[in-house]
Amino acid sequence: MTHPTHAQSPRPTTRRTVLRGTAATAALATAGLAATGPAHATDVHPKTDSGNSSSGSDGPRIGILLYDGYSLLDPTGPAEVLSRVPGASVTMLAERRGPIRTDTGDVAVLADRSLDEAGRLDVLLVPGAGNRGLIAAMQNRPLLDWIRETNRRTRFTTSVCTGSLILAAAGLLDGRRATTYWASAPYMEKTFDVTYVPERYVKSGKFITSAGVSAGLDMSLYLAARLTDDDTAKAIQLAVEYDPRPPFDAGNAQEASDDLKARALKILEDSQV
Amino acid sequence: MTHPTHAQSPRPTTRRTVLRGTAATAALATAGLAATGPAHATDVHPKTDSGNSSSGSDGPRIGILLYDGYSLLDPTGPAEVLSRVPGASVTMLAERRGPIRTDTGDVAVLADRSLDEAGRLDVLLVPGAGNRGLIAAMQNRPLLDWIRETNRRTRFTTSVCTGSLILAAAGLLDGRRATTYWASAPYMEKTFDVTYVPERYVKSGKFITSAGVSAGLDMSLYLAARLTDDDTAKAIQLAVEYDPRPPFDAGNAQEASDDLKARALKILEDSQV
Repeated sequence: MTHPTHAQSPRPTTRRTVLRGTAATAALATAGLAATGPAHATDVHPKTDSGNSSSGSDGPRIGILLYDGYSLLDPTGPAEVLSRVPGASVTMLAERRGPIRTDTGDVAVLADRSLDEAGRLDVLLVPGAGNRGLIAAMQNRPLLDWIRETNRRTRFTTSVCTGSLILAAAGLLDGRRATTYWASAPYMEKTFDVTYVPERYVKSGKFITSAGVSAGLDMSLYLAARLTDDDTAKAIQLAVEYDPRPPFDAGNAQEASDDLKARALKILEDSQV
Repeated sequence: MTHPTHAQSPRPTTRRTVLRGTAATAALATAGLAATGPAHATDVHPKTDSGNSSSGSDGPRIGILLYDGYSLLDPTGPAEVLSRVPGASVTMLAERRGPIRTDTGDVAVLADRSLDEAGRLDVLLVPGAGNRGLIAAMQNRPLLDWIRETNRRTRFTTSVCTGSLILAAAGLLDGRRATTYWASAPYMEKTFDVTYVPERYVKSGKFITSAGVSAGLDMSLYLAARLTDDDTAKAIQLAVEYDPRPPFDAGNAQEASDDLKARALKILEDSQV
């Protein structure tokens, strides 16, 4: 097919209308698109190479911890939402800078700063992982030390999925209510002094834990509201068009059959490297 | 706080129980964890450096296109879901290998293969982007040529958010029904011979387009069912605990006030570099 592309002769209005609904155009007329500028090379370097990646803005500094074997959506769902918080900076952190690969081995996200370079964080988010990555993280004493030390100055310390087990291993959830991946709940309660609450996210003091993987989206919208206000969080929800309608209703472990749970865990295990 | 970590003396059962609910343990007893093996360095290299990244499995080959300025959740949500499809390989692709940064500049995902290295794909997924990245992609003729050429042999060609505008710019959606980011719908209908359908995802022939950002999760579960069967897709949904319960009900543009829509677009614009 050698169909000519429409993009060869874009209408003069293209640059100003692609992302704008007509209803919103008037309200945005003064904002202009000049701030976004022409396309330029930002494919390698973060906003800045030193200091705060929010280019001097005074919004919350959000650090997301990456470690080998995390589950991809755990850090990236919240990063999508939280990067829309006005003035916020979101920085991917790991023990060493560089690409950190997921539990399936399929994808790597770049850690832009090492833990030593993280600086003070307003929000720390610890994602979950498959067994291999999770066990390694829970046994990584320097990592747990860094989490404890960083937690001293955060406004919120948060987790997605089995990330709460890492917070628990760091001793931060003792005596608290928390959530985790559904299949890890018995382990959490057996191993730590933590009361499992089967909600999408659970706040206990400044700690906010999320249920499995996708629950980080719900948690991060809640967190966005805490960092700003409900109206801003609602605008962020609309900005990412988060009006979920999955084709099935099978995501709740409390309603799932034993067979479906066994299939889900087998699928997870088989997908991991 | 110098709390001793629980991880220092894990119970002997730790490796086998962390991710397993008691109800599922019996069913999984034969699977064992040997397949996942001990932690090893997978933080830099994909499963293989050549050939198919699924390590020789015969599942679907899924390619996700990255380009400067994409929105983070657009490729990563579907990658999380689709990487759980039994035997599937998910590969991040871009014009050149290396880190490709998002619209906010905050995060980079690694492209593991260049477009020349992509090989035949069963599924192509094109994410959306902010204005800067979107316009550059829609005007990038080699990229559009590659999309058209790759599409010739896919089983499904899919998009998330404004990725459908890139498919349209490549001439692939002519005469079809499709969806896109809510604010881009008027532009899509004005510019292309496409009928906008305000659903989470729209299938037209082998093309499956998604609404904005988070809609890629719903679409990819549907796609997982098409690539396997409903029961497998439901198990994947449970595996990623996708039982969405956002704290607000503000993600549907058709129900949103003009003020909220204007705020959402302003937030998007201000968050982008």
